[in-house]
Amino acid sequence: MDYYSRQISKLIQELSSLPGIGAKSAQRLAFHILNMPKEAVEALAAAIVEAKEKVRYCKECFTLTDEEVCPICRDEARNHKTIMVVENTRDLAAYEKTGKYDGVYHVLHGAISPMLGIGPNDIKLKELMQRLQQEVEEVIIATNSSLEGETTAMYISKLIKPTGIKVTRIASGVPVGGDLEYIDEVTLLRALEGRTEL
Amino acid sequence: MDYYSRQISKLIQELSSLPGIGAKSAQRLAFHILNMPKEAVEALAAAIVEAKEKVRYCKECFTLTDEEVCPICRDEARNHKTIMVVENTRDLAAYEKTGKYDGVYHVLHGAISPMLGIGPNDIKLKELMQRLQQEVEEVIIATNSSLEGETTAMYISKLIKPTGIKVTRIASGVPVGGDLEYIDEVTLLRALEGRTEL
Repeated sequence: MDYYSRQISKLIQELSSLPGIGAKSAQRLAFHILNMPKEAVEALAAAIVEAKEKVRYCKECFTLTDEEVCPICRDEARNHKTIMVVENTRDLAAYEKTGKYDGVYHVLHGAISPMLGIGPNDIKLKELMQRLQQEVEEVIIATNSSLEGETTAMYISKLIKPTGIKVTRIASGVPVGGDLEYIDEVTLLRALEGRTEL
Repeated sequence: MDYYSRQISKLIQELSSLPGIGAKSAQRLAFHILNMPKEAVEALAAAIVEAKEKVRYCKECFTLTDEEVCPICRDEARNHKTIMVVENTRDLAAYEKTGKYDGVYHVLHGAISPMLGIGPNDIKLKELMQRLQQEVEEVIIATNSSLEGETTAMYISKLIKPTGIKVTRIASGVPVGGDLEYIDEVTLLRALEGRTEL
């Protein structure tokens, strides 16, 4: 990219290393940034650096937060005896958006994947087991419905069962509003297996 | 977005203000950035700030550069008597990539658009007319083939004609490899009007 000055090429290169941003988008973003007011550019750069500097894991649930203990774990109105296990902070946010879950969470930061060489020790599983030494009534496993998510769910449930704590798994099935016609067979079979009486 | 810590929400908000980045992509990017090594994050932020700080207009052709005069304008091997007028630096880069144009450029930084209230004084047109006081043989107008681009081309050609300098416009027509079946009627008519003898 000799057509651009060194700084522009550098910026394009940095931007195109981000996920989902190809060469064309990176160019478009770079020129947008060059046309932004100086203060806005500095605010963007500061947000990037500050997020990286200040954000760390909550020492209870391991979600990303800027405090020692995240607001959810600190909230005494929530039910601390129910722990929902999720793969990452985005999944936690997805459940928080529903506004209907009042328990706490545990963020694994990954899922077991023999294919990618990610074992039980590479995710926050030991930390989950440690939390179970406190009084916990139910562990809801809300890992993804993918191969890795299912493997992780199975592994965790086998680990927890001997402790006598109730372990549940969120339901798999047809998404609300989903048209059966367009839904894959595995999901259809799951929905059939998981049918409930009306 | 109370589900995320303040810094993460801030970062997501800053990222989603960029063009082509929606709420979901901004979230994905933010978490990617949080997982990047500290040095990579700092390099990204620095590239953003430095590009904005150091990049300015070339005092000859007004392309974005980090020097007083850009490498193209400084290059004595190029033909300085042919000026290609483009709307922005990305268009300049597109022609540079062909590797076949050896003249110089003039970057307008926009196009005349009565709809958007952009008049001849809002783009680098005065600066182009000033350059024509030096020895120039041909001005090639390579603004986009959009309404604004065409309006600008027309306006510039009327402005330059009285000076006696040759003014040309890049051809409109069927893109190379384009299938006639999928090309709009206006382009087809343009291609017909612009036909050349074989």
